[in-house]
Amino acid sequence: MAGEKEVDVVIIGAGPAGITAALYAKRKALSVRIFESKAAGGQTADAIWVENYTGMKKIEGIKLMQKMQEHLKDFDVEIDEAAEITGIKKTETGFEIDMENGEEKIAAKAVILCTGSKYKMLNVPGEKELYGKGLSYCATCEGPGFKDKVVAVVGGGNSGANAAIFFADICSKVYIVEFGEKAAYDSVYEKALKAQSKIEIILNTQVTVIEGKEKVEGIKTKNRATGEEKVVPVNGVFIYIGMQPRNDLAKQLGLELTEKGFIKVDTDNRTSLPGMFAAGDITGELAQTIVAAGSGAKAAVSAFEFIKGLK
Amino acid sequence: MAGEKEVDVVIIGAGPAGITAALYAKRKALSVRIFESKAAGGQTADAIWVENYTGMKKIEGIKLMQKMQEHLKDFDVEIDEAAEITGIKKTETGFEIDMENGEEKIAAKAVILCTGSKYKMLNVPGEKELYGKGLSYCATCEGPGFKDKVVAVVGGGNSGANAAIFFADICSKVYIVEFGEKAAYDSVYEKALKAQSKIEIILNTQVTVIEGKEKVEGIKTKNRATGEEKVVPVNGVFIYIGMQPRNDLAKQLGLELTEKGFIKVDTDNRTSLPGMFAAGDITGELAQTIVAAGSGAKAAVSAFEFIKGLK
Repeated sequence: MAGEKEVDVVIIGAGPAGITAALYAKRKALSVRIFESKAAGGQTADAIWVENYTGMKKIEGIKLMQKMQEHLKDFDVEIDEAAEITGIKKTETGFEIDMENGEEKIAAKAVILCTGSKYKMLNVPGEKELYGKGLSYCATCEGPGFKDKVVAVVGGGNSGANAAIFFADICSKVYIVEFGEKAAYDSVYEKALKAQSKIEIILNTQVTVIEGKEKVEGIKTKNRATGEEKVVPVNGVFIYIGMQPRNDLAKQLGLELTEKGFIKVDTDNRTSLPGMFAAGDITGELAQTIVAAGSGAKAAVSAFEFIKGLK
Repeated sequence: MAGEKEVDVVIIGAGPAGITAALYAKRKALSVRIFESKAAGGQTADAIWVENYTGMKKIEGIKLMQKMQEHLKDFDVEIDEAAEITGIKKTETGFEIDMENGEEKIAAKAVILCTGSKYKMLNVPGEKELYGKGLSYCATCEGPGFKDKVVAVVGGGNSGANAAIFFADICSKVYIVEFGEKAAYDSVYEKALKAQSKIEIILNTQVTVIEGKEKVEGIKTKNRATGEEKVVPVNGVFIYIGMQPRNDLAKQLGLELTEKGFIKVDTDNRTSLPGMFAAGDITGELAQTIVAAGSGAKAAVSAFEFIKGLK
C-alpha cells in the first residue's frame, strides 16, 4: 500500500510494536501504512543480543528485527523508512498526517503511535565503544550475564535502584554511582538496598570515562565536591540516567501523558483521544521486545474495533 | 528447581504466558516452579497454525510451544506437567499452594496465574473432526485464510458480531447463526452489521451437524420454532458461543473478576490481591500468543518488584 493517501490505519514507528500492529491490522483486512523516521527495528535493532523473545533462543537484535520485517513483508506491507512525520491533526473523519519530505498529506481513520523512547547517554569516552561489551542500558536484557561479577549502576533513581537490587542477588559487588548529593530513588527502595551489603552507593560523583579495551574494565569517577579522581574496577556498567520518550507527536495532539512523559493507555492500548492508539516503549510499559509486540497486536485490534464503530 | 518446596514464585499454567513469566522470573534470579495441569503449551498448542507470532513465520502451534519450552529449559526451568493445583492460601509470608497429587504444600512469595481459558464447544458431529479444516474458534487467528469464501459464525453475541463484521470485509457471504430469538450483541454492533449487506442473521436456529469430509462443506441447521432442517453450504465455520475462563483458583482467592469471570489486572498485570499476578487469556486480554507472552513478561517483573518490596 506504499504511496496510498487514504488508509484505515497509519502506524508511526517500526520497532516490534509498530511491525506487530501492522501485521495484525493487515490481517484484520485494514489498509495500512507504517512510517519510520530512521531505519526499521526500534531499540531492539540496537540490542547486541536478545535472549528473552520467547521461542527464539539467543539472537542478535538486528536479526530478530529482520525476521519481523520479513514476516510483515509476507503480508504485503512495506515500511516507509526515513519518513519523518511532522504533524498530526484531528479531522472530522479521522486524522491528517503531515510528512517532512513534502509528500502530500495522508488521511487515516485511526493512528497507532509506536514512537518508542531512547535511553539517555552519559556521553563520556568509552561509552559508545564498549556498548555491548559490558556496557548496557538494560539490566533485564543483559543483566543475567553478569553472575558473580562486579557491576556499576550509573544513576540512583528508581530504575537504577531496581537494577542494583537485582544485581545484588547475582553479582559479587554492586556500585551505584549517583551524580547528586542524594540518590533520587523512592523511600520504598531504601529498605531493599540496605538489606544488601553488596551494594555500595557512591554519591555526588560523576563518571567521566568508561575504561577498557575489548570489554569494560572499570569506570573513572570524579567526586564533585573534592575533585578527587579514581578508577573503580568493574566488569559491567549499566547506565540508568533516564529514558526519553519520543513524545513530540503525542504532545502536539494533547494526549494524556504520565509524569515522565509516556502516553497513558488503557489495557487495550487506547489513548485519551478516540481513534488514537499507542503501543510499545512510548507507553512506558516494560521496555522489552516481547511486551512491545504484544501491545502492538492489542492496539491494532482496538483500532479495528474503533474503525468499525464497535467500541 | 523441580521438587523445591519453598520458592520465590509459583506460576500456574504453562502456555505462552506462563512460560514467558517463568523465563523472565528466572532471568531476574528468582527461584521458580511452574505447574501445568495437562501438557504444557496452552491453547496455542492446539492451534493448527500460528501465522502471527511476529518474527516467526507460519508455524504449527505445537511446534511454537515446543520452541518456547526448549527456550525455557535453557534457563534450567522444568515444567511440572499433569500437576493440578487444588488450592492456594494466603499466608503471612506469601502463599501456600496445595497439589492434588499429595505432594507436600509449596510455599511461594508470589504467584502468577496463567490458567487460561477455553472456547466453549458446540458438541455436535463434525466439530472435532473438522477442527482446523475450516472450523475454528478464532477469527483473528484463522480468519484471514477465508478471503472470498462463505463462512458461518455460530453465536450472535459481541464476539460473534465482531467476527462477522471482519469477515464481511473479506468474504463473499457471512451467516450469523443464533440460537436465541434475538442476537445478544450490544446495540453498538447493530449499525456495523446493517452496513454490510453480505451478513445474513439466522435467528432461533441450532447448528446440529458440521458437514464435510476433508474440509468444512456446510452446516446443518434446525429452526427451533418450526423444526425445519436445512443444510447451508459454507467453507468456514467459526464458533463463538463463549469463552470459559479457568478461574477456579481466582474465585477461591476472592480476586476481583470482570463480568465474564476473567481476572482483573492493571497494566502491570497485578491482580486485586498483593503478591498475586495474572497473565494471558485468564485476564480476558486479546487471546493471542504474542499478547500472552508479553503479559507474562510483565507479570514476572511485577512479581520481582513485589518480592523485593519495591512496589
